[in-house]
Amino acid sequence: MSSFVPADPDYMARTRAAFALQAMMKSAQAEIRSIEPGVVVIAFPFCEQFTQQHGYMHAGLVTAIVDSACGFAAFTLAPRSNTILTVEYKVNLLAPAHGQRFRATGRVVRAGKTLSVCEGDVVAIQDGSEKHVLRMLATMMQVPL
Amino acid sequence: MSSFVPADPDYMARTRAAFALQAMMKSAQAEIRSIEPGVVVIAFPFCEQFTQQHGYMHAGLVTAIVDSACGFAAFTLAPRSNTILTVEYKVNLLAPAHGQRFRATGRVVRAGKTLSVCEGDVVAIQDGSEKHVLRMLATMMQVPL
Amino acid sequence: MSSFVPADPDYMARTRAAFALQAMMKSAQAEIRSIEPGVVVIAFPFCEQFTQQHGYMHAGLVTAIVDSACGFAAFTLAPRSNTILTVEYKVNLLAPAHGQRFRATGRVVRAGKTLSVCEGDVVAIQDGSEKHVLRMLATMMQVPL
Amino acid sequence: MSSFVPADPDYMARTRAAFALQAMMKSAQAEIRSIEPGVVVIAFPFCEQFTQQHGYMHAGLVTAIVDSACGFAAFTLAPRSNTILTVEYKVNLLAPAHGQRFRATGRVVRAGKTLSVCEGDVVAIQDGSEKHVLRMLATMMQVPL
Repeated sequence: MSSFVPADPDYMARTRAAFALQAMMKSAQAEIRSIEPGVVVIAFPFCEQFTQQHGYMHAGLVTAIVDSACGFAAFTLAPRSNTILTVEYKVNLLAPAHGQRFRATGRVVRAGKTLSVCEGDVVAIQDGSEKHVLRMLATMMQVPL
Repeated sequence: MSSFVPADPDYMARTRAAFALQAMMKSAQAEIRSIEPGVVVIAFPFCEQFTQQHGYMHAGLVTAIVDSACGFAAFTLAPRSNTILTVEYKVNLLAPAHGQRFRATGRVVRAGKTLSVCEGDVVAIQDGSEKHVLRMLATMMQVPL
Repeated sequence: MSSFVPADPDYMARTRAAFALQAMMKSAQAEIRSIEPGVVVIAFPFCEQFTQQHGYMHAGLVTAIVDSACGFAAFTLAPRSNTILTVEYKVNLLAPAHGQRFRATGRVVRAGKTLSVCEGDVVAIQDGSEKHVLRMLATMMQVPL
Repeated sequence: MSSFVPADPDYMARTRAAFALQAMMKSAQAEIRSIEPGVVVIAFPFCEQFTQQHGYMHAGLVTAIVDSACGFAAFTLAPRSNTILTVEYKVNLLAPAHGQRFRATGRVVRAGKTLSVCEGDVVAIQDGSEKHVLRMLATMMQVPL
């Protein structure tokens, strides 16, 4: 359970609607698994189309999805009048993105009026066992719609 | 002109061959524009499939390509026996990735025996005018093939 | 309790000895509070000498200490033959470093043979109440002594 | 020559006055070498008090000074009514900070109304020869005084 209180009680439907507008998420067959105030989990499958030279998922694709998880985590706490833009992120690749399925979690570390700091993690799932493959530290900005 | 001396005189063909193995680059219709020791330029077009909610290119997709530009920049300086893995990167998004075409440049800042530090930039081109949309600072690692 | 197993059973004394060699830590009146495998906590007081223009502790000084906490966290897991160098770090400043005392915690997220990824946090303590002021994500490298 | 136009023609005196308020800069014997719109250079000497275990300058101290150089670079472009806070920075350590003297340069990469992106470099000078020891990529925020 997160300890954040959303500014808009309708944050869940609003987050799902914003997610549905990202063609990138559809292309990656990404789906929201859970939404709570300040925490969003997105699942996505291995996809040949987005691999690097060793046949694993390209780190950039994985970054795209955990960036979205972090952005939507900040979005759950924003008022109805605002949207979220990514200011910057830093990613450490902990292991190759080798798995049949992946789970990206974005969490708000500090929610500010203008800027929010989020952390993200991606886990690769292969034959039922999980491996931590990526850690993100990101800054998100609220801007009026 | 870069001031780096490649360890393998055949660096150009080797870089093109490694690039051709990344399905992700093909999916993004990305093409190498130039290769010199320590500097690689990749061009890619706007692609509906990789957009975010405002219709611009998703920052994650742009990150994927500039990460590759930085990785291949480090790769041009590596001996024939080694490949390059991304250790980590940090990206500042300077403006929305709004353009018909894009150009990602990766440059080696410091080439080490094990680790190399690279910087990347992405420019968006819209109706002939250019805008700086992303700056990356990344760490790459040489590993034996 | 951390889940890491140190390569050297004498890691605690070795970590204290390495810490004692950093003049910077002495200048900041920093002291190790606890050492366990993969986790090091350092405490330090407010010090006029290291303030910025608003009279709070300079972010760079706070960064220096949490960098050390992360580096020593990686050091606890290294074999006797190796030392640790900081490759890079990324810091988000969550609130001004306003406090009478501070506590910096460094934790290993992933311990690799060559590179380790660590996260760091700094808490400011003012009149008994604590505030999270900094989050770090860092890469450390083992090098032979 | 930088291409930025300062909002306040009196930016130079204002920057020097703000610098003089940082006790941390005085403790490090740091001095401003030059100020132009969007670019600030700070020089500082080796100082035993701020060394790490190998006798070189502690990376955190060097970070503190280049963070200031970047912050003041953004400050030169801010209107009289605003000050600058560091949001976050990322630092790559390129070589040990081994020198008799050091020069930290902060440059604005993109100046925004609220956020500015800056890059910083530190050069170590030993017996007349220079070595690039640190690269920073940072986000600065304008806030009303």
